[in-house]
Amino acid sequence: MTQSQQESKLWGGRFAEATDGLVELFNASVSFDQRLAEQDIRGSLAHVAMLGKQGILQADEVKRISDGLRGVLAEIRAGTFEWRLDREDVHMNVEAALRDRIGPVAGKLHTARSRNDQVAVDFRLFTKEAALDLADQTRDLRRVMLAEAEKHLQDEVIVPGYTHLQVAQPILLSHWFMAYVAMLERDEGRLRDAAARMDESPLGSSALAGTPWPIDRHATAAALGFARPTANSLDGVGSRDFALEFLSAGAILGAHLSRLSEELILYSTFEFGFLTLPDSHTTGSSIMPQKKNPDVAELARGKAGRLFGNLMGLLTVVKGTPLAYNKDLQEDKEGVFDSYDTLSIVLRLYAEMLPKTVWHADVTKAAAARGYSTATDLADFLARGGVPFREAHEVVGGLVGLASRSGRQLWELEDGELRAAHPLLSADVARSLTVEESVKSRQSFGGTAPGRVREAVNAAKAALS
Amino acid sequence: MTQSQQESKLWGGRFAEATDGLVELFNASVSFDQRLAEQDIRGSLAHVAMLGKQGILQADEVKRISDGLRGVLAEIRAGTFEWRLDREDVHMNVEAALRDRIGPVAGKLHTARSRNDQVAVDFRLFTKEAALDLADQTRDLRRVMLAEAEKHLQDEVIVPGYTHLQVAQPILLSHWFMAYVAMLERDEGRLRDAAARMDESPLGSSALAGTPWPIDRHATAAALGFARPTANSLDGVGSRDFALEFLSAGAILGAHLSRLSEELILYSTFEFGFLTLPDSHTTGSSIMPQKKNPDVAELARGKAGRLFGNLMGLLTVVKGTPLAYNKDLQEDKEGVFDSYDTLSIVLRLYAEMLPKTVWHADVTKAAAARGYSTATDLADFLARGGVPFREAHEVVGGLVGLASRSGRQLWELEDGELRAAHPLLSADVARSLTVEESVKSRQSFGGTAPGRVREAVNAAKAALS
Amino acid sequence: MTQSQQESKLWGGRFAEATDGLVELFNASVSFDQRLAEQDIRGSLAHVAMLGKQGILQADEVKRISDGLRGVLAEIRAGTFEWRLDREDVHMNVEAALRDRIGPVAGKLHTARSRNDQVAVDFRLFTKEAALDLADQTRDLRRVMLAEAEKHLQDEVIVPGYTHLQVAQPILLSHWFMAYVAMLERDEGRLRDAAARMDESPLGSSALAGTPWPIDRHATAAALGFARPTANSLDGVGSRDFALEFLSAGAILGAHLSRLSEELILYSTFEFGFLTLPDSHTTGSSIMPQKKNPDVAELARGKAGRLFGNLMGLLTVVKGTPLAYNKDLQEDKEGVFDSYDTLSIVLRLYAEMLPKTVWHADVTKAAAARGYSTATDLADFLARGGVPFREAHEVVGGLVGLASRSGRQLWELEDGELRAAHPLLSADVARSLTVEESVKSRQSFGGTAPGRVREAVNAAKAALS
Amino acid sequence: MTQSQQESKLWGGRFAEATDGLVELFNASVSFDQRLAEQDIRGSLAHVAMLGKQGILQADEVKRISDGLRGVLAEIRAGTFEWRLDREDVHMNVEAALRDRIGPVAGKLHTARSRNDQVAVDFRLFTKEAALDLADQTRDLRRVMLAEAEKHLQDEVIVPGYTHLQVAQPILLSHWFMAYVAMLERDEGRLRDAAARMDESPLGSSALAGTPWPIDRHATAAALGFARPTANSLDGVGSRDFALEFLSAGAILGAHLSRLSEELILYSTFEFGFLTLPDSHTTGSSIMPQKKNPDVAELARGKAGRLFGNLMGLLTVVKGTPLAYNKDLQEDKEGVFDSYDTLSIVLRLYAEMLPKTVWHADVTKAAAARGYSTATDLADFLARGGVPFREAHEVVGGLVGLASRSGRQLWELEDGELRAAHPLLSADVARSLTVEESVKSRQSFGGTAPGRVREAVNAAKAALS
Repeated sequence: MTQSQQESKLWGGRFAEATDGLVELFNASVSFDQRLAEQDIRGSLAHVAMLGKQGILQADEVKRISDGLRGVLAEIRAGTFEWRLDREDVHMNVEAALRDRIGPVAGKLHTARSRNDQVAVDFRLFTKEAALDLADQTRDLRRVMLAEAEKHLQDEVIVPGYTHLQVAQPILLSHWFMAYVAMLERDEGRLRDAAARMDESPLGSSALAGTPWPIDRHATAAALGFARPTANSLDGVGSRDFALEFLSAGAILGAHLSRLSEELILYSTFEFGFLTLPDSHTTGSSIMPQKKNPDVAELARGKAGRLFGNLMGLLTVVKGTPLAYNKDLQEDKEGVFDSYDTLSIVLRLYAEMLPKTVWHADVTKAAAARGYSTATDLADFLARGGVPFREAHEVVGGLVGLASRSGRQLWELEDGELRAAHPLLSADVARSLTVEESVKSRQSFGGTAPGRVREAVNAAKAALS
Repeated sequence: MTQSQQESKLWGGRFAEATDGLVELFNASVSFDQRLAEQDIRGSLAHVAMLGKQGILQADEVKRISDGLRGVLAEIRAGTFEWRLDREDVHMNVEAALRDRIGPVAGKLHTARSRNDQVAVDFRLFTKEAALDLADQTRDLRRVMLAEAEKHLQDEVIVPGYTHLQVAQPILLSHWFMAYVAMLERDEGRLRDAAARMDESPLGSSALAGTPWPIDRHATAAALGFARPTANSLDGVGSRDFALEFLSAGAILGAHLSRLSEELILYSTFEFGFLTLPDSHTTGSSIMPQKKNPDVAELARGKAGRLFGNLMGLLTVVKGTPLAYNKDLQEDKEGVFDSYDTLSIVLRLYAEMLPKTVWHADVTKAAAARGYSTATDLADFLARGGVPFREAHEVVGGLVGLASRSGRQLWELEDGELRAAHPLLSADVARSLTVEESVKSRQSFGGTAPGRVREAVNAAKAALS
Repeated sequence: MTQSQQESKLWGGRFAEATDGLVELFNASVSFDQRLAEQDIRGSLAHVAMLGKQGILQADEVKRISDGLRGVLAEIRAGTFEWRLDREDVHMNVEAALRDRIGPVAGKLHTARSRNDQVAVDFRLFTKEAALDLADQTRDLRRVMLAEAEKHLQDEVIVPGYTHLQVAQPILLSHWFMAYVAMLERDEGRLRDAAARMDESPLGSSALAGTPWPIDRHATAAALGFARPTANSLDGVGSRDFALEFLSAGAILGAHLSRLSEELILYSTFEFGFLTLPDSHTTGSSIMPQKKNPDVAELARGKAGRLFGNLMGLLTVVKGTPLAYNKDLQEDKEGVFDSYDTLSIVLRLYAEMLPKTVWHADVTKAAAARGYSTATDLADFLARGGVPFREAHEVVGGLVGLASRSGRQLWELEDGELRAAHPLLSADVARSLTVEESVKSRQSFGGTAPGRVREAVNAAKAALS
Repeated sequence: MTQSQQESKLWGGRFAEATDGLVELFNASVSFDQRLAEQDIRGSLAHVAMLGKQGILQADEVKRISDGLRGVLAEIRAGTFEWRLDREDVHMNVEAALRDRIGPVAGKLHTARSRNDQVAVDFRLFTKEAALDLADQTRDLRRVMLAEAEKHLQDEVIVPGYTHLQVAQPILLSHWFMAYVAMLERDEGRLRDAAARMDESPLGSSALAGTPWPIDRHATAAALGFARPTANSLDGVGSRDFALEFLSAGAILGAHLSRLSEELILYSTFEFGFLTLPDSHTTGSSIMPQKKNPDVAELARGKAGRLFGNLMGLLTVVKGTPLAYNKDLQEDKEGVFDSYDTLSIVLRLYAEMLPKTVWHADVTKAAAARGYSTATDLADFLARGGVPFREAHEVVGGLVGLASRSGRQLWELEDGELRAAHPLLSADVARSLTVEESVKSRQSFGGTAPGRVREAVNAAKAALS
């Protein structure tokens, strides 16, 4: 072991042989956990202040260590800090740099603490903040969607409502936006629930069993903005369900965004032609000069892969590992960072892109009228006349077949044909089946009638403010 | 299409050709969704009562339909109901059986409703109840664990605390139990949060757009025990994040149970020898007469696989599907049923098995003393004498190396050796490093000192009652 | 332990306490592993014949056991066999039934064998046959696709080729079919490679270490149709990579089928209108009489979920389990059964459905002409005239912009506009840019020109025969 | 769009608005796909040489372009190349740098090529080489394991063989090593099969339909070391099953390594005490001076998480995407890079660590004798005497119960006790049941008898050379 390694490996006391180079590379986490530097130093500052207050360290020791830590932080923020692989991780890098600055007193910082609770508190701080930030971002996107919903409510823009990707019934475009608002609202709930459940400080759990030092864990918890300390030291250092819950909420949010993306991709095809995505959020082809590709939406759809993969990855890591801390758990961070970054950029891009997306109301309305989308209305008309719905359904099914075979719409059927199908029917009835009437009629709570959608928009706005 | 098919396929109006036999088999969900029969009929009863109250159906129609439905339910409960594959799913089976009983008026049941909102409400009822039931079961298991923690607290049974599966520090067995209590508490939280978030009735969303009928969705929601109706009809029929959230909470709970299982398997080996599992929960070998295998724990560990797989499966299904309902979503149920059943039986088995498990306190205590598990205490002793912790760590590391090379424990080192390592040390100090003292010393909040564990047990009991 | 349990639990010798009822339910695998009954009895017949040949059993013992086994098999095939949960698994059920038939001599069957190698050989037999059967089925589907490719090659049906779901370049429908033929060919390869790699008999590995009996493992391997015995007994009973490889090949095949499904769903929308799926393979709606839903394709797309989930599930099970056999491995079967059944029905349904699917050549050709799909051809024209491709790309990009802004096609641009963009261009050149010409021009190997596609069809047919 | 953007975005011809900054960041892949620079330039060199040979480019153009590409490559290798985010990806970065060097003629490089086939060929080159490299590395590790097996075969080191982690039967340590050799052999097979199946060049598929230029795809395939060109252009640019197969083979290999890791972690505990890992491959604790943690093995076990996650991620990406290329597919690379790097370092670390691992033969032999591990031998003794195995099993089960209750081994039972259990038994028989005899007796093919293991080692060595 070289002198430099001796210095930097803080656990080298009993080891006769130097760590193998490849091992060092394999074990080191500094390439990714340096991202926790802010959290690490916040944690250390809270810890050292508490050690002082509890009389474990002297006031001047606290001051020197705190000043030193702030100095290191400044360096990191300035980008001048030298991250060293041989110092393994963010904790050792920071502590060794502190020792370089203030000498052996730096060694007192680690009193009543272990890397196990240190990394646990750093990572919880990060994950909690990430969850809350994503929760806020789902609100931003909802605000954008609500604005879209309101905008298109003015003109009562009609689009086809699909089931099985077959035109089913006409709906308001605003209603479609409100479906995603509802999903995102639950996504926010999941993220905030996760944040609240992980809002516990493991600091002071020490290696796994707590510590004999007269520390005040409630104080450090409060100083770091946690609601409380964790109640069990093994659990504090050994559990990662907080990260799993974050990744789960992220995967579900990602699934929702993948559905939105799929619809935007479909609607921007030549075949659907419902909307035009902004040039700023599409790209061209290196060989086909005419292409305008919905890259953002496609990538956002594809990003579901890494969100699901990150979740499956950490579930696998945790599966079957005994308590308390195992090195396997070092694998917990990259997935969380990646899911956070991924969702963060997708949410922002959609918040940017949706207001610049142009919907072609004439095209969507024409599409909404296709495919006998008002056939249910005709069946409902019969049912309201006392025909059991199942019978009404059969009657209208037959008329659709008739119209379809002759290439006509329902309102193009002849009076005789309609009356033959059922005495309650007539050409007048059939002609009243416009998409506008259909939309207006769906007055049930949560339905697509303009008044209902207006009500939903107002409720969602209230929930956001 | 045969007459029988004509009768049973309720959507056959426009179709010229019979459904292919293999297609029928492929599309039919009745083999698994018959499990939703209770929920389906509860939903129908609430729906038809509301239709009556709203004047959409006549009182006698309501009565005939309701009585008929109750008759069908009685048959199902009695196990005499004939489930027919050609009737596709639970909904069609029930409705067709109703028609067989009460004639064409049965066709009025489906007024203002679609299979899309029908299956959504059935499945939500099931999933919500499953989540709440599992939440209750985590409480049962916690009660058992708390009782174990209390029992072993009386004798202050000491076990090794591990990190990296290396003996790290001695802890109380009760403390170990409390770590799992903490995990299960959060698992309960996740399940209840999920149940609360999905506590919305989609009934009345109809196919996807709502309905023109003057229905009262708040009434059916209340009648079915939901907190409120869903606010958007597309979302109501097309979203499955409630099932994803259930599966996520289940996967995380399963990960915790896999860790517990791993530890029980390890602790019941000859090599660890910490505990004896009850004969009732172990099995033998067909070839090796001496074997006593921890099958329950192994299977419980392995069950994590299907819990993770079910989650991955449904995430995949949802990924990239456009709104609102798509047939893909039929794939949502089996995984939820399976995860529920799996967790249900594992939780019950652990609640049965743990109280019958015998811990060998002498073995665990001896194991806890191995591996220089009190070395941290020695380092802490030095640190309390003013030596910076990092330096104390180095000193003790050296002593461990010395002891290890000569096959001794720390308390077997000679006075001279200790003093040479650091002037504050002596044989007296080393001899005071017992596992009992070590455990007692860890008085920090959440630590393993008996008083702290007692405090944790009391808090957890309070939380449970 | 009741007498009946005593009888049926074949490992009960050292156990003082009866197995708990719930434990029995939990441990028992007979509900699903009875599917291996044929394989189990084939394995036993091979084993007992070998025991006879090696002089371990007497000829009459062999005869009585073999006859007994055949009797049990006949019962199972006839559906009259009583599967008993208290007999745990298929092996114990068969053996106990054998003992009921032929008395204690049945106990000699298990000589030199363990349940560990018994289940391993049964499950390998099943999985290998499943892999080969699916491989054959991919060939069936390819034959169907090749027939479609040939059929549509006669009329040179043109469809749009998409990238980013934007019309990119016109291609032959036959070319599109051949892309899936290529994928399925590799899927077959993966399945056959998996079958070949698992083509080893673990029988005779016994519990884990081999056996002292003078058995002939090569003989049983040969009798069961395996290429060879496994070379290591621990590996023979403890490895499940053969099942993982099967599930992986299945997941990838499922991914391909999900892509095909997605395209069929898109192409059968009103908006695309490229094809009509047969009535026999679509279904209607319970509320919307006009709907014709591509249920088979949707379900086939959704089935990717369970295929991926089954793989994830077994990977999780295997992760971190020590050698050799652990009860966790009992979780290996249901996923394999399910993936096999799922793929089997989807492959057959597509083989049925594709020939009955009607393509609308006029619609697809018109679609293929949209979106300036021949712009690359224009750029290539310029490049052939010596203009660097990048420059040609820029020129044509500008023309597309011009045409697009004025709602024209490239061939509707005026001579002056074209010449202004580049001196090599003219109205004549632009008018020659038909989709037919474009398709014909792509003569590179693997390209969409009719001659090339014909060549590909012939090669694929040769590969299939 | 700034001038610089104009220059670098090679598809900007028809776009009126600049790409949004965040979009650029989101779409850009250069941060990770620069890893394909070597492959990209090899591909371009092969392409341009072919263009020359086919008379599509002039000889001097070929020379200028080739020289330029080599210059760019030299810069990249030297680490002086400036990667620019605004140039999106590796392809655009290289091409733009080429243009900076040699001017507009650089634009001719992209003749008869698209980024779609370009990235497909680059990524296949990488993945094929990664698969072959990992295949080679599994051979290296097998060589190491074979050397270990041979070394420990000399002293016939005995370890316990486990099932259910309960001591089952004694085996040779060499036999245990050979189990992993067998797994790794199949892992190599999977990797090579994958490499062979993906050994096709998609270059010349162009955007998706092939190209009108008279290119020679066989020539570029051969120049790049591919076995053949892909047979269908849509498939060539749109399929990623080659990456999925690589990730699958990697996940299974990772599962095997996680099992090995688990065993090494267990065996290095104080409780098992079977082996000592080298200092060079273990690490210490920041708080517990005595700890020696098997970090490498733990991390290797945990790495299964990312390997499974990468596979699940890409399966998700591919699921349900239509042909041919979609931007989602850009998500294919990072997982492949990560799985390759992960497996590469784990395989190398194990090849380093295993020879430096010290096994404690006395400890393992004593452990192998525990737990009545020779009980099967006693049952086999009875069975050889004509007692049906099932009956023998019962008899020995009873004796194990007797011995266990009185804390004795089987060979410590008294003659009377043994004879009472069965007349064929005696104290002499019981005393002959040593672990050495047990091991020697298991002479079946693939069994643990020394001669059989020697045979297996020789066969495995032959297979490796």
